[in-house]
Amino acid sequence: MPSIRSDETHDPKRTSWVVSARGHAEFPVQNLPFGMFSPPDEAPRPGVAIGDEIIELQALIAAGLARDVPGDLRDVFATPALRKSLRTQMSHLLSNSRYRDTAEPYLHHAADCILHLPATIGDYTDFYVGIHHAMNVGKLFRPDAPLLPNYKHVPIGYHGRASSIRPSGVPVVRPNGQTKAPDAEAPVFVPVKRLDFELELGVWIGQGNALGHPIAIADAPQNIAGFCLLNDWSARDVQAWEYQPLGPFLAKNFHTTISPWVVTPEALIPFRSPQPPRPEGDPHPLSYLWDESDQAAGGLNIELGVTLSTEAMRAQNLPAQVLSQSHARHMYWTVAQIVTHHASNGCDLTPGDLIGTGTLSGPTIDSCGSLLELSDGGKTPITLPSDETRTFLMDGDEVTLTAHASAKGFVSIGFGACVARILPAR
Amino acid sequence: MPSIRSDETHDPKRTSWVVSARGHAEFPVQNLPFGMFSPPDEAPRPGVAIGDEIIELQALIAAGLARDVPGDLRDVFATPALRKSLRTQMSHLLSNSRYRDTAEPYLHHAADCILHLPATIGDYTDFYVGIHHAMNVGKLFRPDAPLLPNYKHVPIGYHGRASSIRPSGVPVVRPNGQTKAPDAEAPVFVPVKRLDFELELGVWIGQGNALGHPIAIADAPQNIAGFCLLNDWSARDVQAWEYQPLGPFLAKNFHTTISPWVVTPEALIPFRSPQPPRPEGDPHPLSYLWDESDQAAGGLNIELGVTLSTEAMRAQNLPAQVLSQSHARHMYWTVAQIVTHHASNGCDLTPGDLIGTGTLSGPTIDSCGSLLELSDGGKTPITLPSDETRTFLMDGDEVTLTAHASAKGFVSIGFGACVARILPAR
Repeated sequence: MPSIRSDETHDPKRTSWVVSARGHAEFPVQNLPFGMFSPPDEAPRPGVAIGDEIIELQALIAAGLARDVPGDLRDVFATPALRKSLRTQMSHLLSNSRYRDTAEPYLHHAADCILHLPATIGDYTDFYVGIHHAMNVGKLFRPDAPLLPNYKHVPIGYHGRASSIRPSGVPVVRPNGQTKAPDAEAPVFVPVKRLDFELELGVWIGQGNALGHPIAIADAPQNIAGFCLLNDWSARDVQAWEYQPLGPFLAKNFHTTISPWVVTPEALIPFRSPQPPRPEGDPHPLSYLWDESDQAAGGLNIELGVTLSTEAMRAQNLPAQVLSQSHARHMYWTVAQIVTHHASNGCDLTPGDLIGTGTLSGPTIDSCGSLLELSDGGKTPITLPSDETRTFLMDGDEVTLTAHASAKGFVSIGFGACVARILPAR
Repeated sequence: MPSIRSDETHDPKRTSWVVSARGHAEFPVQNLPFGMFSPPDEAPRPGVAIGDEIIELQALIAAGLARDVPGDLRDVFATPALRKSLRTQMSHLLSNSRYRDTAEPYLHHAADCILHLPATIGDYTDFYVGIHHAMNVGKLFRPDAPLLPNYKHVPIGYHGRASSIRPSGVPVVRPNGQTKAPDAEAPVFVPVKRLDFELELGVWIGQGNALGHPIAIADAPQNIAGFCLLNDWSARDVQAWEYQPLGPFLAKNFHTTISPWVVTPEALIPFRSPQPPRPEGDPHPLSYLWDESDQAAGGLNIELGVTLSTEAMRAQNLPAQVLSQSHARHMYWTVAQIVTHHASNGCDLTPGDLIGTGTLSGPTIDSCGSLLELSDGGKTPITLPSDETRTFLMDGDEVTLTAHASAKGFVSIGFGACVARILPAR
């Protein structure tokens, strides 16, 4: 990790001839995330976000404007050298105005395009490394012992559903589910009442490992292809009834929303930070999870946010309400520790697998990453500018997750929005 | 379900000109499972098992011996009509001796071929519908309340790892894992000690459903493409330490073995049976899980078995020891109920998804489907013909799962072996 330094692609003086990229909160020329998009009425293709535009990769080869551009995004995931070469080329192309005239025809207005999942997701795993979230949720179930004895030894995770992951923008249909109120005699099958969001980061797996061959923690970074935002929509009433003894299932697998742009580890180099030291008295991680370089630079300087807008708020032209402002520093385990633990038993990770961090709540009420926490288990409603209240999500509600990375002396970058609206149950 | 009747393909008088198929315990001409295989040094291709041979599908089209043969197995999964047409054609071709001379060149000795996974598995879900297993395991953790309150209302399931599923024959490397003995002060990371098997049936998903659109229980059968055996290898010491609160993870995802042949719902028509009635006092399932036809014919008349051979037993030429004989009737929920529940919140199932039933133990000690149960949590070792004992699996141990379906007046069929040997930890 210490060998990875910022380079000319991070130079804050570098600006793009794509005018909308200058001062862009998400996609200045220092970011250059990759993804899959369709121009209007056309087939999906790989592209790179720049300001409010998307540049089409394959066309650049044909035009002689790029070489070593991967044939499809799977190669960008699987081959760190290709990903880095792509970044260097795009940074050069998009910041030198002498390329403007020839490259401009290959730009598409992002607002006119459809964004797709960047990869066919093989397996999706969700972790639980947000320690404040684990404490908050644990308190609701076990006031005396919110954190279970394994939490500070094991990066806790579980398998999620890959098929129902959708890119930002696809509406979420309120699921029906089997629920049982604590005082009810029998369960019922009804539209869920306690529909919630969860603020998470997503981690895209790069080259991966063969079955039976773990990934040493020092090798974890080269197996990470990028990052996104992830909303782990959750039906709390289903979860409470179904989750014993094998964990969450239908409470989670009806829909997961991710931001469609893959923000690369290279773009995030200036925003690495030391992993916050463990509180006095916490156990030292076992050696397979410990790496000095990872501790020195495995943290992520990323600010996270959640906003909500309701149908009534939109009708009154009220802006979305900030529900939470949190930070990636609330991860008790680093991304490298997560990846290494996942493969420590020989489980094979493959290019395009997706890992969620778990909900990244902060220690205060205004930094909680789910309504379950924000409303104290549904007991304390939140009041909105429209004078409505919420404990959980209502039909028509729209939740937006955001992420921005900043560091002194560097241009800030963002992840793009991770947004979806709730439709009524069918 | 009652509309599905046995037809000429099930005729017990029908025999094949492939001599090894006559009286074959697994693959007589009444079975005809499909799969992916490679002849020696050749590429994978679709085939159908017949006796000790495999017939190559694509070559039959070229030779004018078949029409409507699917281009790849995904079509066989996704399209019930194609699957049924394939069965009818292969039954006709392989039982009429006038085709022998022209078709024989397209047979391959199965013993010389490599069998692959029949599909790229999108998502893998494991259920827990073996009620005796749930009772036995529950007793070890909660002697007073072995079954949790949700068990008889909810077909309990959780997501498993698709990437680490391998066909029969691929060795299982003993995983390393984080474990903590109850009396130890801290966990350790070591080769797991309590390595176990689990006897399950696997269910292949056929056409599936769109996100947000549940599958009605009456429509569940048309979404099932076939069945296999499934060994859900489990590290009990890892499981005990990691599984709270989100369920099993690294205890399971290091390897799962399946039998590579897809036994079709059409082959199993004679072996459907009424679902055993629920014991007096058990709750009636909610209406979304209830269908009279499913109750009348949703059971499976399939005998299941587990054998073990150790390195010492093989050195002494001792035959494999039968550890367990069980039956699919021990499923508390039918396959249709499992599929319908899975999609009841709108979760999308896709062709080639795999579902495990959970361990299918019977009510007696000699019908238990795991060593955890057979050895009463490791307290009562099993003695083998080699005078060795086992509580859990040792390196060199080879576990074989078997399944056979039989019914009066019909030719019995089998699933083929689901076998793997344990290699020492790396």
